[in-house]
Amino acid sequence: MMNIYAGRIAIVGVTGYAGQELDRILATHPNFKAAGRFASKADDRSGAEAFSMERLRSFSPDAVVLATEHELSLHLVPELLQEGYRVVDMSGAFRLKEPAQYQEWYGFAHTAPQLLQEAVYGLPEFLSEQIRGAKLVANPGCYATAAVLPLIPIYNAAAIDSACTVVVDGMSGVSGAGRSPKRETHFCEVNENLSAYGVLQHRHTPEMVAQLRGATFDRFVFTPHLIPISRGILNTITLRAVERGSVLSILTETYAKSPFVRVLPAGQLPNVQSITRTNICSIGVVAKGTTAVLVSAIDNLVKGAAGQAVQNLNLMFGCEPTAGLL
Amino acid sequence: MMNIYAGRIAIVGVTGYAGQELDRILATHPNFKAAGRFASKADDRSGAEAFSMERLRSFSPDAVVLATEHELSLHLVPELLQEGYRVVDMSGAFRLKEPAQYQEWYGFAHTAPQLLQEAVYGLPEFLSEQIRGAKLVANPGCYATAAVLPLIPIYNAAAIDSACTVVVDGMSGVSGAGRSPKRETHFCEVNENLSAYGVLQHRHTPEMVAQLRGATFDRFVFTPHLIPISRGILNTITLRAVERGSVLSILTETYAKSPFVRVLPAGQLPNVQSITRTNICSIGVVAKGTTAVLVSAIDNLVKGAAGQAVQNLNLMFGCEPTAGLL
Amino acid sequence: MMNIYAGRIAIVGVTGYAGQELDRILATHPNFKAAGRFASKADDRSGAEAFSMERLRSFSPDAVVLATEHELSLHLVPELLQEGYRVVDMSGAFRLKEPAQYQEWYGFAHTAPQLLQEAVYGLPEFLSEQIRGAKLVANPGCYATAAVLPLIPIYNAAAIDSACTVVVDGMSGVSGAGRSPKRETHFCEVNENLSAYGVLQHRHTPEMVAQLRGATFDRFVFTPHLIPISRGILNTITLRAVERGSVLSILTETYAKSPFVRVLPAGQLPNVQSITRTNICSIGVVAKGTTAVLVSAIDNLVKGAAGQAVQNLNLMFGCEPTAGLL
Amino acid sequence: MMNIYAGRIAIVGVTGYAGQELDRILATHPNFKAAGRFASKADDRSGAEAFSMERLRSFSPDAVVLATEHELSLHLVPELLQEGYRVVDMSGAFRLKEPAQYQEWYGFAHTAPQLLQEAVYGLPEFLSEQIRGAKLVANPGCYATAAVLPLIPIYNAAAIDSACTVVVDGMSGVSGAGRSPKRETHFCEVNENLSAYGVLQHRHTPEMVAQLRGATFDRFVFTPHLIPISRGILNTITLRAVERGSVLSILTETYAKSPFVRVLPAGQLPNVQSITRTNICSIGVVAKGTTAVLVSAIDNLVKGAAGQAVQNLNLMFGCEPTAGLL
Repeated sequence: MMNIYAGRIAIVGVTGYAGQELDRILATHPNFKAAGRFASKADDRSGAEAFSMERLRSFSPDAVVLATEHELSLHLVPELLQEGYRVVDMSGAFRLKEPAQYQEWYGFAHTAPQLLQEAVYGLPEFLSEQIRGAKLVANPGCYATAAVLPLIPIYNAAAIDSACTVVVDGMSGVSGAGRSPKRETHFCEVNENLSAYGVLQHRHTPEMVAQLRGATFDRFVFTPHLIPISRGILNTITLRAVERGSVLSILTETYAKSPFVRVLPAGQLPNVQSITRTNICSIGVVAKGTTAVLVSAIDNLVKGAAGQAVQNLNLMFGCEPTAGLL
Repeated sequence: MMNIYAGRIAIVGVTGYAGQELDRILATHPNFKAAGRFASKADDRSGAEAFSMERLRSFSPDAVVLATEHELSLHLVPELLQEGYRVVDMSGAFRLKEPAQYQEWYGFAHTAPQLLQEAVYGLPEFLSEQIRGAKLVANPGCYATAAVLPLIPIYNAAAIDSACTVVVDGMSGVSGAGRSPKRETHFCEVNENLSAYGVLQHRHTPEMVAQLRGATFDRFVFTPHLIPISRGILNTITLRAVERGSVLSILTETYAKSPFVRVLPAGQLPNVQSITRTNICSIGVVAKGTTAVLVSAIDNLVKGAAGQAVQNLNLMFGCEPTAGLL
Repeated sequence: MMNIYAGRIAIVGVTGYAGQELDRILATHPNFKAAGRFASKADDRSGAEAFSMERLRSFSPDAVVLATEHELSLHLVPELLQEGYRVVDMSGAFRLKEPAQYQEWYGFAHTAPQLLQEAVYGLPEFLSEQIRGAKLVANPGCYATAAVLPLIPIYNAAAIDSACTVVVDGMSGVSGAGRSPKRETHFCEVNENLSAYGVLQHRHTPEMVAQLRGATFDRFVFTPHLIPISRGILNTITLRAVERGSVLSILTETYAKSPFVRVLPAGQLPNVQSITRTNICSIGVVAKGTTAVLVSAIDNLVKGAAGQAVQNLNLMFGCEPTAGLL
Repeated sequence: MMNIYAGRIAIVGVTGYAGQELDRILATHPNFKAAGRFASKADDRSGAEAFSMERLRSFSPDAVVLATEHELSLHLVPELLQEGYRVVDMSGAFRLKEPAQYQEWYGFAHTAPQLLQEAVYGLPEFLSEQIRGAKLVANPGCYATAAVLPLIPIYNAAAIDSACTVVVDGMSGVSGAGRSPKRETHFCEVNENLSAYGVLQHRHTPEMVAQLRGATFDRFVFTPHLIPISRGILNTITLRAVERGSVLSILTETYAKSPFVRVLPAGQLPNVQSITRTNICSIGVVAKGTTAVLVSAIDNLVKGAAGQAVQNLNLMFGCEPTAGLL
């Protein structure tokens, strides 16, 4: 399927970190052509033009990828669907199914609740059929991707002792906080520093719980941390299994043929450098008795954002699953 | 008690990071005089002389602080005690009470098991009486300090749901790995990288469990991570309380008068910069229902090593508890 | 003179990096008392109150230190002097003598040109007499401090081959760019990056040339670089001497009794870590024939800003030159 | 010429940073096949086998690339040539023409001086004809590449005022110091630090002077600096031109068709991020009167090592000049 034309893709938010990364991936993708590169704001010094529906139409894209803030996505998605475009949204605006969760976790009333059911959660390893036919794909959160890929198979196998809390401690590079200058992302505030943030209220928590069969907010704790690196996420997950030693074998079997999930042999753990600038989620497990510690690593801008968006586009447009991503 | 002479202190291992820090603190301490600064190895380019018992005697110190590797401490401590010196050992060689744990966690047979009972765990916030009279103080591990200070009061109050695992995810700067060049501490291997290490087998685990009344290895998981900063530790601790909202108030009460433990008001969490180059352990708590997330931060070289050693020396020699440390 | 009351000091701009550092130094200074800590802007989350002349008066300070932007200093200094306060200004607004240079290098017309002659350039190593009696001290720029301390003695001795350009390549940590969030100081833009900026037009150039007897813009080139560290400046200076080997000896003699300038022995060069968090300028020289390479290092927030301001205050108020700075 | 087989390439020193990078480039190169990947030392944990001539023969390579230390290259090159292999040596062992310079700059007597004349300096932008037919290519030093690409055209045009010293201040990431653990490359020694090193005696100096027509050691000063980034070099070059404004136009014309040298428009300067992980040398110029400041940036592991080696292999084996490098 090499170099067969499959679709024209517009990007909104091309000047942010995820948008830039998407732009880079699409530049060498064998099946997609760029069809519009828009900044989400007009004044960006990058030279990218500001988004307008009229200018978008002039590019006649087949799909639009939104690398925009939640609020802007919420505003744009209904219009884009109405115009007939297929949409991959990298924000969180359409990841949850229950409108009330937006008030609770995002702090706003969702203005297009009817689309939440239509939206497909863009996790290709588990939802490829739905993604193929989707009009609207909600690209998963970066921390969520690195949490649910190791955990879905374990929850599916009912291999977790449900009396015990599952603890996900996430560590992320600063690009995850976006490119807009803020006190929190000033070099001197991040460098030689470590902090937890959004404790017990981070927005990726409800999408994790939603993807994990049997998980409850009461027994699932996610704590993210800001780390002085530019890109990369490491999630350390601690759980109690119902049975000794089952966790690694479940993962190994589940992902035996998955091109982008790498389960390491017993005793090996991933680090961020081993997957930087790739679309791979690498997972290792250490277990002792029924305690299991899982460590997963992704590049937050690739498997955690733009790379996964391209995985979804590949499905939506019938390309090879790995096209543009190896 | 300002500027009253209290004791002459020798340092062994003065060229490592903890030794350097101790040297700096003692340089302005009002009550102690330096009495011998030794490298642990002869060939160090620093100009510090290599340790020998004969040279040590020539300085007539009242106490010796060891900033040395476990193995060297194990070798030196019995001799130093026999010579009549009081010793503060910053290694792990005398922190555990059960000799068998050295085989299990440190990988060697302990050669001075009789001293393990005599050694006092140097945590001044809880063991000040024993430290005052101690001949041998085992200075706590850096991760352990940042874990047991927030956890001891909670375990003492039996406020933890013992059916549920307590999870401590620690993040440390690279100085914690020592100053000897290794592949693992090469700039390019650490920079733009994140990794977990020593999973389910880190040496600070047994000293944590030993300090926590009722804790068991089965329900206590500690996972350390290497982070690209030079100094600082952040521990994120997740636990299930027996009762809503008790955790913060227990901590606030326990440490109301503690000069070096700072419990933050509800909703505030510490970061590493807020305590760098201080002897403070700063603790914050976020709770929801019975889930509590505690975040503690210390400077691994100060409260996690040299500063705590000076806290112990202050007790041993009758100085003000905060002398040299504010 | 220990602990003798000498003056009450107000700080404007206490929430920036230089203001914070000044606040820290004054907190333990034996002779000064804080008398007003103001943010330069009202909305700062730090809790510091916004500056107003009325509030300043209520603190009755003896001197005011401005850790503010050029434009704000330009606005405040005339008023503060009229109110009778002695002022140390850490901005560049009063460092140059010729008003026209403000248009050329700073891009604005100077609105208080009559004060430029009255202002004293706050370089204590060379202008201590004038600083003692000054009403207005213009604290030197960080790069300028690290350039003129090694160069003034060489120019004074007419030891430079004037046919050849003197080249100063400066490298600075990010705190030198201030604390206001900007794209340029976003962690991801600075980390794993290096860049030159302000080439041939940096504002510290005219103050360097003004301090160097015989220097001309035509034969003096300063190029600053942004480096991914938080604090510290290293200047590498290349020049051709009129005579072999004279440069180091001139420096060694000049600074033999200077508490804050350290000239290293032949063959040794300073690095930033060796002077971080000190008020020291450390200088090393390597020469071959008549070529000399000088390397100087300072902490941009201490000797390059707040520490030097305190050195100036010490002179203005008759304190020990090193009070609060060792 | 896409995917036409051109040659089998063995790598010696594949576990170092330059060797790894070469391995990565060759993995997707359309014309080359890997034929032996050797560590320079036997005990490397990477799993790469130790080099031996016997094992090398078993792979029947057409060329061998050495990513080894100077001393090992000096030892291996004569043997490899005798065996009939074409060699690209990334060390400095064959970059200079005068044997005496090895004693002066490298500190050893060259043991194969007869090969120095035969060796071709592997700078494809200027020596492509000689490289095509070469048996032995001496791949340029990283700093040297970033210095001579901007300077060769200026020296060739005799556009430099020879009375005035040309000053090259280089700043390099830590991967340039190699992967062997050393005190100097320990994270905590590099992080939050800046230093100059090898002042007036760095080994890349003589290869720069040799490539620059009319340059003399007396009027050419190169000072390298170690910067806390993993990869990237920025050289800032200050010179006096014989004529105003000529420098940029000379460079623009020279490199108009060069695929890997990018001369920026007036007023623009490169930074390291703009060229990281590419084979590009990006150059900007700022001039005022006859003073010109040139800033050049390369990735030290690509254009400064492995990428340039592949550029040379492309010439040696008749591939497209950009094969595997875009």
